[in-house]
Amino acid sequence: MLVITNQEIQQHVGAAVVIDAVEKAFAAFGRGESKVFPVARGSGSDPCHITAIKSGFDASTGFMGVKAASYNPGNRARGLASHTSTTLLIDDVTAEVVAVVEAGYLNGLRTAAADAIAVKYLARPDAHRLGIIGLGAQAVFEIEAVAAVRPIDTVYAARRAGADTDRFAQAVRERTGLIVEFRDVEDLARQADIIVTATPATSPVLRDEWIRPGTHVSAMGSDNVGKMELPVELVARSLFYMDYPEQSAVIGEAQHLLAAGQATLADLRRRSLGDLICATVSGRSSADDITVFDSSGIAIQDIAAAHAAMTIVRSVRSA
Amino acid sequence: MLVITNQEIQQHVGAAVVIDAVEKAFAAFGRGESKVFPVARGSGSDPCHITAIKSGFDASTGFMGVKAASYNPGNRARGLASHTSTTLLIDDVTAEVVAVVEAGYLNGLRTAAADAIAVKYLARPDAHRLGIIGLGAQAVFEIEAVAAVRPIDTVYAARRAGADTDRFAQAVRERTGLIVEFRDVEDLARQADIIVTATPATSPVLRDEWIRPGTHVSAMGSDNVGKMELPVELVARSLFYMDYPEQSAVIGEAQHLLAAGQATLADLRRRSLGDLICATVSGRSSADDITVFDSSGIAIQDIAAAHAAMTIVRSVRSA
Repeated sequence: MLVITNQEIQQHVGAAVVIDAVEKAFAAFGRGESKVFPVARGSGSDPCHITAIKSGFDASTGFMGVKAASYNPGNRARGLASHTSTTLLIDDVTAEVVAVVEAGYLNGLRTAAADAIAVKYLARPDAHRLGIIGLGAQAVFEIEAVAAVRPIDTVYAARRAGADTDRFAQAVRERTGLIVEFRDVEDLARQADIIVTATPATSPVLRDEWIRPGTHVSAMGSDNVGKMELPVELVARSLFYMDYPEQSAVIGEAQHLLAAGQATLADLRRRSLGDLICATVSGRSSADDITVFDSSGIAIQDIAAAHAAMTIVRSVRSA
Repeated sequence: MLVITNQEIQQHVGAAVVIDAVEKAFAAFGRGESKVFPVARGSGSDPCHITAIKSGFDASTGFMGVKAASYNPGNRARGLASHTSTTLLIDDVTAEVVAVVEAGYLNGLRTAAADAIAVKYLARPDAHRLGIIGLGAQAVFEIEAVAAVRPIDTVYAARRAGADTDRFAQAVRERTGLIVEFRDVEDLARQADIIVTATPATSPVLRDEWIRPGTHVSAMGSDNVGKMELPVELVARSLFYMDYPEQSAVIGEAQHLLAAGQATLADLRRRSLGDLICATVSGRSSADDITVFDSSGIAIQDIAAAHAAMTIVRSVRSA
């Protein structure tokens, strides 16, 4: 069993290779070749420390995988990362556990990859102004990934009272070379071609009337019951896509669309990112369409990203 | 992250220490301090290759854990083990993945430990004749574990057409020093004080009328819908216990008891091994009682066993 460390991944694995791997994984999922197993989650003695276990089979790599992701907000006070993540890669043929991959950093890459793939397939080709809402660690990954698929030259980030905007701007500059301009959310929403929301919000972080024709929105944050980043009106009038409709209907933005009676699960079923990649559902048809992608996160992303990381790190080690 | 290998576990971790760890885990579970998360399972391109993921929190060690166990019957033709198993140990406080434990061998120990703990609490103190039904690798672990809790001097194994009885007898002798006598199932059942069933059966492997007063039966095999080792009549007239009633009701012997209308889930709920250890349910009250234990396997066993293995191997390494 190989052990692929977080440090090696940070050193050797970039956004582009993970985007490529995750796109292939979504394509295989869209063709119905891959599988997502039920998500298990629970907590131990501290109800705030939640471990979620995502597992499945990714046909693009031929691996089953299991990711255990722990979230413990109390870790901040301990000076520790609040998220930890580890992925086991299991050979689909031999059942051998081929690798255990420390996936804390990789999780940021794989999540951003899905949002960027949606941008690649849905945003206008000339989209170059990116607006980001949310100033956490994930936001930096999101900017980097979107910049890998569109000629981003302008990054707006939404101001937030008390946030360390200098530190955020520096992290983005170091990672992407891009200069962040801080804006009120309304200005950001009215000016950006692409908006990425990366927040833990439970009510909309922007208003429907702010969104111009032609905008693409990737909503990364909603991944549990009750979470919500977008107004239902915006989702309802957009061309709307999800990573995994069955899951989005429960824990993504789609839950609110269904609750508002604006769609049925049957309406949503053929609107996955995989369907879009495989062209079994159409995407943007005019420069004025508003497109929305709802990301909740699925195991095939973890498997494809871990497999890519394993392949790269193994080749670096043997070089 | 520590990596604890299968080889180190085979070399340094014995049955007694795992029985002790698993008993403490069941006690904490019986006190309501531990948790079992939902089981996830699925297959990849080959529907016969099934991966099951068991996870939970074990208060006796303070660890969450995730075990991924793959079963691929096609592996026999490849000369590979049909079962593979890997456990992640996650610190309940810091969310750190402290160890990844190769758990193929350990799985045999932890499964046998539960059956032996049931023997410890339920079999007559003077029980010394053990009958084993099933001649697979697990049967050897079961004999070893039972011999650790009762003064076993006689082992009967059920004959099976085409089975390599010499190899089985040799494996038992090497491991426990005990000599196996092969018997027809009926003779075995009529003569044994303790019976362990370790088969993949889907219909009873013994008959109710063969079971003498005073016998204890640990049924290890049933761990899925449709599996069955014991006649419902036997279970119904016995003092009946389960590792985890909610799970046994779906995948253990209890499923057939419920289907036959011989019990309700409410009847079963306080009849767990943890309740027995904590004495919140009574056990055998006379030398004539027939006692039955239904083992389906839960995550706290995996966590406690992996934690014990980690502790031992770490101390061996630093010695």
